[in-house]
Amino acid sequence: MIKELQGFFDRVISVKLPENREYVDIIDQTLLPNEEKRIVLRTREEIWEAIKKLRVRGAPAIGVCAAYGMAVLANQYSAETYEDFSKAFMADKDYLASSRPTAVNLFWALDRMGKVVEENSSMPLDQLKDRLFDEAKAIQEEDIQISRNIGEIGFQLMEGLKKPGQPLGIETHCNAGTLATAMYGTATAPMYTALDKGWKPEDMHVYCDETRPLLQGARLTAYEMNKSGIPTTVECDSMCSILMQSGKIQIIFVGCDRVARNGDAANKIGTSTLAIVAKHYNIPFYVCAPSSTIDPEAKDIHDIPIEFRDPEEIKSEWYAKPMVPAEVEGYNPAFDVTTHDLITGIITEKGLVTGDFEKEFQRLGIF
Amino acid sequence: MIKELQGFFDRVISVKLPENREYVDIIDQTLLPNEEKRIVLRTREEIWEAIKKLRVRGAPAIGVCAAYGMAVLANQYSAETYEDFSKAFMADKDYLASSRPTAVNLFWALDRMGKVVEENSSMPLDQLKDRLFDEAKAIQEEDIQISRNIGEIGFQLMEGLKKPGQPLGIETHCNAGTLATAMYGTATAPMYTALDKGWKPEDMHVYCDETRPLLQGARLTAYEMNKSGIPTTVECDSMCSILMQSGKIQIIFVGCDRVARNGDAANKIGTSTLAIVAKHYNIPFYVCAPSSTIDPEAKDIHDIPIEFRDPEEIKSEWYAKPMVPAEVEGYNPAFDVTTHDLITGIITEKGLVTGDFEKEFQRLGIF
Repeated sequence: MIKELQGFFDRVISVKLPENREYVDIIDQTLLPNEEKRIVLRTREEIWEAIKKLRVRGAPAIGVCAAYGMAVLANQYSAETYEDFSKAFMADKDYLASSRPTAVNLFWALDRMGKVVEENSSMPLDQLKDRLFDEAKAIQEEDIQISRNIGEIGFQLMEGLKKPGQPLGIETHCNAGTLATAMYGTATAPMYTALDKGWKPEDMHVYCDETRPLLQGARLTAYEMNKSGIPTTVECDSMCSILMQSGKIQIIFVGCDRVARNGDAANKIGTSTLAIVAKHYNIPFYVCAPSSTIDPEAKDIHDIPIEFRDPEEIKSEWYAKPMVPAEVEGYNPAFDVTTHDLITGIITEKGLVTGDFEKEFQRLGIF
Repeated sequence: MIKELQGFFDRVISVKLPENREYVDIIDQTLLPNEEKRIVLRTREEIWEAIKKLRVRGAPAIGVCAAYGMAVLANQYSAETYEDFSKAFMADKDYLASSRPTAVNLFWALDRMGKVVEENSSMPLDQLKDRLFDEAKAIQEEDIQISRNIGEIGFQLMEGLKKPGQPLGIETHCNAGTLATAMYGTATAPMYTALDKGWKPEDMHVYCDETRPLLQGARLTAYEMNKSGIPTTVECDSMCSILMQSGKIQIIFVGCDRVARNGDAANKIGTSTLAIVAKHYNIPFYVCAPSSTIDPEAKDIHDIPIEFRDPEEIKSEWYAKPMVPAEVEGYNPAFDVTTHDLITGIITEKGLVTGDFEKEFQRLGIF
């Protein structure tokens, strides 16, 4: 990795473990973009609170935080028997699992750590403590490798579209970046990979949709892009048409939460609006999807339920005063589903999927 | 007009003149939606400040306010000669014109009032004062008549789409309503006309795009729709895809600022995004355009320059804290242009225009 990119990741990475392994070090995302502050999580209460209050957010980042959190907690146990150790571990694991009851990746990471304890009942406790750090590191490194692969594929697409002497215009929605993952992000992996492959920051220009109502694009993606040195602009979500009409955008990368067998992809609210506009202007639209997000149980859009969130997020969140009359209803779906006909390609760590998504997923062994 | 609608307009109308003709009575739009307060403009400073500070906004509403304002001021003059009267009038007129130097309709209304003074130099001053009130009233009533005609045509389109037992879902963008005009609005005229023609409020459901960055949909359209009794929902602009996908929207009405000969229509930023999404879902998309907004000098989209506004409107306006890193650029076009291929029809006070817009505009005598 080039030095500048390493320096950037050291500063902005969502979760890291110091060499002394005494605490988890996270960037407090609730303070961004106005304050860049890393905080230390030493106790189970601190870890729980950080996840609960979204100081750390994004499925992979939460998983890494919980895994390192469990390893750090276990390292503090004074238990002398496996039974005492295991009992303390399972209690802490259940406690952390209660921090965000809908975060699937949180349970997945905690269960994976739990399995290490269950499967190594005869291991000396000091060795088991080391083994837990190794498992947490493996969770982190697997995510990094997935992002690297996605980044490689995305970068090749960028190279194909780059015109000499002109920055490549890239639009993205929400935050599927470093802050949400272990390192490269998913939708941002192509851009960071480009830096690592020798592109200069000014060879690109990233347009971040602000992403109402929670403004992850404005607050988080714009923050991390800017810190990486890439020229960055924030626009309101509704400005995608004029932005594409004016020729500023050559490629779009978005993340995703869940992809159905046929390629219909659920992602942050507004993604499907962006995809429809991209299709209108003939701009390639790519979904960056770790294969773990591809759900063979979901046939198509109809199998993806949409979560609705508190209307106050639209009506009054962030504002100095409410912006919608109190009597008026707010419509606040958290996600929408971009149908496969609008998607140029789905970039998984196992390869780029285009055309007949279901057949291609099978060919790549995803299901 | 039915009693309920009259009561609504009395309360919400942007500008009115009391019987004693001593002041202009406006609703202070800067306080909406949190406070519903009518204020009194008696002096030229008060009128200037109200226009400057957007307490009254929307091209027709500003025109009516300035016209009544000039009549009220003229009525206070103690001048005994035409020369003194005219001199005072022209000074006040120039003063009011400086309140919003880009508001074309403001100058238009002031010039029309000025012409009354110029053309009636031999009229007794008391009579001239009355004549000025008549002219202001005429400006108001012409706008009301335009809105009524647009409302009739829009209402017929609504009737054609209405299914028994189901509210008609209507989406709109920004505020082209009562608050922006003399009475019925443009994009809202079909809904108010429906009430006047016997539809119950619950026969409709109006979805107001919040309309970032200035939130006129959330603050103003949702306010006036709700006050009229019509069930109202506010959604983020990016939610138009899922909203249409889920079958909630049957028709879309938007206002416009300027229409080119070929039907390309400039309106509040985000309108063309909405139009592209509407076309994708096959939902009829209508632009409500007084014929005064149709500009025969503009051939098409390329003749419509786009004003860019202060990026801080995106980055920090309304918020308790800035939401975009200070170093990041903000992209803030005030308008976008919806190309004619995306527009089902343009509703003018002279008739509904579909198909070959240029030919139809000519057929209706618009140019």
